[in-house]
Amino acid sequence: MRRPRRKAEDTREEILLAAEEQFRARGVSGCSIAHIAHALSMSPANVFKHFHSKLALADAICDRQITRIMGRLEDGGAPAPPPERLALVVRQLMETHLQNLRENPYMFEMIFVMREQSFTSAGRYKEKIEHLFVEVISEGVAAGIYHCTDLQKCARTAATAFVGVLHPVFIVNMSENELSQRRDELVDLVNAALQNPLAR
Amino acid sequence: MRRPRRKAEDTREEILLAAEEQFRARGVSGCSIAHIAHALSMSPANVFKHFHSKLALADAICDRQITRIMGRLEDGGAPAPPPERLALVVRQLMETHLQNLRENPYMFEMIFVMREQSFTSAGRYKEKIEHLFVEVISEGVAAGIYHCTDLQKCARTAATAFVGVLHPVFIVNMSENELSQRRDELVDLVNAALQNPLAR
Repeated sequence: MRRPRRKAEDTREEILLAAEEQFRARGVSGCSIAHIAHALSMSPANVFKHFHSKLALADAICDRQITRIMGRLEDGGAPAPPPERLALVVRQLMETHLQNLRENPYMFEMIFVMREQSFTSAGRYKEKIEHLFVEVISEGVAAGIYHCTDLQKCARTAATAFVGVLHPVFIVNMSENELSQRRDELVDLVNAALQNPLAR
Repeated sequence: MRRPRRKAEDTREEILLAAEEQFRARGVSGCSIAHIAHALSMSPANVFKHFHSKLALADAICDRQITRIMGRLEDGGAPAPPPERLALVVRQLMETHLQNLRENPYMFEMIFVMREQSFTSAGRYKEKIEHLFVEVISEGVAAGIYHCTDLQKCARTAATAFVGVLHPVFIVNMSENELSQRRDELVDLVNAALQNPLAR
């Protein structure tokens, strides 16, 4: 009984690969389910069976990219003191975001074209990023270096503070020098805030 | 001898008003110098005499909006301690950005359509924002509340940290509740960092 399910997963995978290619070639706004079906010599109805809308497709593509990004982050290396770990996490995130944007420039268009849509992948990614910060900050608190009473709030605030050096909209046109400088300054700022015993 | 110069300024003003209207009606990408000339019953050559490109026009429109935004900020109200002044400046900036986005929704498209262009207005605006932070932070340093050895750097870092609650790309879809919460948390974070005597 396993074969049919396996086949559905394969088809889904094929559709996603073709969609990424089509997005890359035609841009997000220039690309329809029909184009993707045509590229696969499939009927549009068959594509619709797996993805009910272009949004669902785009969302699934984002999810794949998030999985790739998180995979690239996991080789954390040797443990370091929390302030340096924070710097490392932000540096790694920035690098994978830059790499993702180079590999998939259509991501930038997607953010604009589909800005009114709600991506479930975006919420999941936000959670994963915040979880990275929760880990670093809780280690710092345990080591007596960071001061933070509400971990979730501290992590969310840190994640928001780094938006200017992590989000595609900002990193797309900044020089690598300026980006690294701003990132390092932000890391110092967030570290100073987290190390302030008087902070809320 | 004043009349001809005055007339050139009037024409420039008329063109900018018409361009704003056309951007609003047709969108930035759907709008050409020819459309704007047509709306004014002017020859395109005449418009080109004042603005050599759509970029120059868009840049001038941004400059007008920046002037409006800065004008709205100037009624600062009663002086407050630096940490509260920081909160006030960020709150005012956020409100004027939200208002500007409501009044000129094409601004969002402009950011996307012209992302590869270099706006001189954007650089000037960044400087003005950083200057606002320089003022607040230097007051805090003078009062012995903030600790900062490089004012320009501290101001630039603070400005970058607030991007996530000030830039159109982020504020366009966030609920007012979430926006205010994130803004207040970021203000606390930046205040904690600036008040940390051990910070660099």
